Amino acid sequence: MNLKEELEQKKQYFENELDKYMPGESSYPEILFKSMRYSLFAGGKRLRPIMLIEACEAFGGDAQKAMPFACAMEMIHTYSLIHDDLPALDNDNFRRGRLTNHKAFGENIAILAGDGLLSYAFEIMSNAVVENLDINSAKAMQAVAFAAGVNGMVSGQTVDVICEGKKIDKQTLDFIHLNKTAAMIVGAVKAGAYLGGADEKTIEKLEKAAIKLGIAFQIQDDVLDVIGTFDELGKTTNSDEKNDKVTYVSLFGVEESKNFTEKLSNEAIEIFKSCGDNMDFFVELTKYLIDRRS
Amino acid sequence: MNLKEELEQKKQYFENELDKYMPGESSYPEILFKSMRYSLFAGGKRLRPIMLIEACEAFGGDAQKAMPFACAMEMIHTYSLIHDDLPALDNDNFRRGRLTNHKAFGENIAILAGDGLLSYAFEIMSNAVVENLDINSAKAMQAVAFAAGVNGMVSGQTVDVICEGKKIDKQTLDFIHLNKTAAMIVGAVKAGAYLGGADEKTIEKLEKAAIKLGIAFQIQDDVLDVIGTFDELGKTTNSDEKNDKVTYVSLFGVEESKNFTEKLSNEAIEIFKSCGDNMDFFVELTKYLIDRRS
Repeated sequence: MNLKEELEQKKQYFENELDKYMPGESSYPEILFKSMRYSLFAGGKRLRPIMLIEACEAFGGDAQKAMPFACAMEMIHTYSLIHDDLPALDNDNFRRGRLTNHKAFGENIAILAGDGLLSYAFEIMSNAVVENLDINSAKAMQAVAFAAGVNGMVSGQTVDVICEGKKIDKQTLDFIHLNKTAAMIVGAVKAGAYLGGADEKTIEKLEKAAIKLGIAFQIQDDVLDVIGTFDELGKTTNSDEKNDKVTYVSLFGVEESKNFTEKLSNEAIEIFKSCGDNMDFFVELTKYLIDRRS
Repeated sequence: MNLKEELEQKKQYFENELDKYMPGESSYPEILFKSMRYSLFAGGKRLRPIMLIEACEAFGGDAQKAMPFACAMEMIHTYSLIHDDLPALDNDNFRRGRLTNHKAFGENIAILAGDGLLSYAFEIMSNAVVENLDINSAKAMQAVAFAAGVNGMVSGQTVDVICEGKKIDKQTLDFIHLNKTAAMIVGAVKAGAYLGGADEKTIEKLEKAAIKLGIAFQIQDDVLDVIGTFDELGKTTNSDEKNDKVTYVSLFGVEESKNFTEKLSNEAIEIFKSCGDNMDFFVELTKYLIDRRS
């Protein structure tokens, strides 16, 4: 089985579990849960939860123990997409080949569905911490909270928003990529590693690798926004140029951006290899993500 | 010292601590932290955090142990106000006598400031759980998460939004009050009681009392919306009628609504009294809240 097939299988497994963690569409108030599920089951790659589960297993942990945290990770990622797409922010009409949440349910429900997903993520992690009551679960939740918050994703999104249409330098762009994208990948890997029982020194190394992988992933996203098609990506292409956004591509061009992703991903791979004997998945995943077309 | 002075003193103490927990305005990105602090320090009554701290102390716990949870509670309450005020929801221009967050910072930053406050609330609770690593801290966080989430505040807000301009019955109105308002009061009291070491049976009773207090508090809010003035409330009055919202007042009139609050608050007081010897604060607070003018 190649990595693409393996990822598809892991995705299926995860989505099946995610469905169990999420209240059904007939829960009251129905429109809230319909709206949350609409975006949560819109067919993302599930990279963050898969990485979390894999990191847990790589250090000898159990996938089922990782599951509430993996589901929470995906709920937080999904809430951020719903809020990012809102008219007051990116004002996007399509996401993953279908209408964005506010286009399907209205802006008021989309805001609440985002709030609901973020809250529910912490609710299921809290439940897991109460149940497990071990330092690893508590630290896993802490890693997710830090990644998602004002020293992570929310700050990256804020700088992204206030810089729209402005000429920004590489340093500011790196801040955005580090916080808007890499932070959650770091959070996923760290949370999984804690749950698996990795030591702090290894987790520090994993963090470094995940940062490089996360930034490489985001630069690749920016490249795909230029060279990809709507059919491949399931969303409008050239949106960065239309929104007057500075990206690696606008600063350095497509070829130089590709060189950045290659350098970063090679460095990430070397660090992953130094983290233990079970890091094959992360090595292969890093290679795969850099070669992806969607 | 009467209760009003006591509450003012507790509020000052809490706000001083809240200031320490919250990153300063010069933190990067500045606009995010400015916007979060703008609403967080807009002079609310701080009822939820004060209740949380009082409940902790009533069962022998330490106020400092309760503090991160009390701060989190107020951050979550504040985020909910910021998002509620947005144009797509209540579209309010004033809150506590000054411009709402989106009027002061723009809609995009207001959405992110709300997301930031909600995330940061869980970040500081996670830090406390990692530090304390006891079942009481974990259960306190769980109580807050449940109260704030899709089985609590977010569901109440959703039903409130979808029912705007519709004729709804008492049952639906009670669902809104229970979830939009009472849930967070329940969360505060339960979280504090857990932190103080109260037993599950007492916490069950506290929950019942807090529900009654919370609903009485909300009915009183609806009454004040009709009989209060802008100067007293710091916000536009008669907003419910303008927004075509069904309230206890529109269903039953001012006098009958006052009777409801009196009955509920008397029941709450009886239950609080049965929860232990140190419940004077909650008894007095319940009386005070029902007599308030703002």
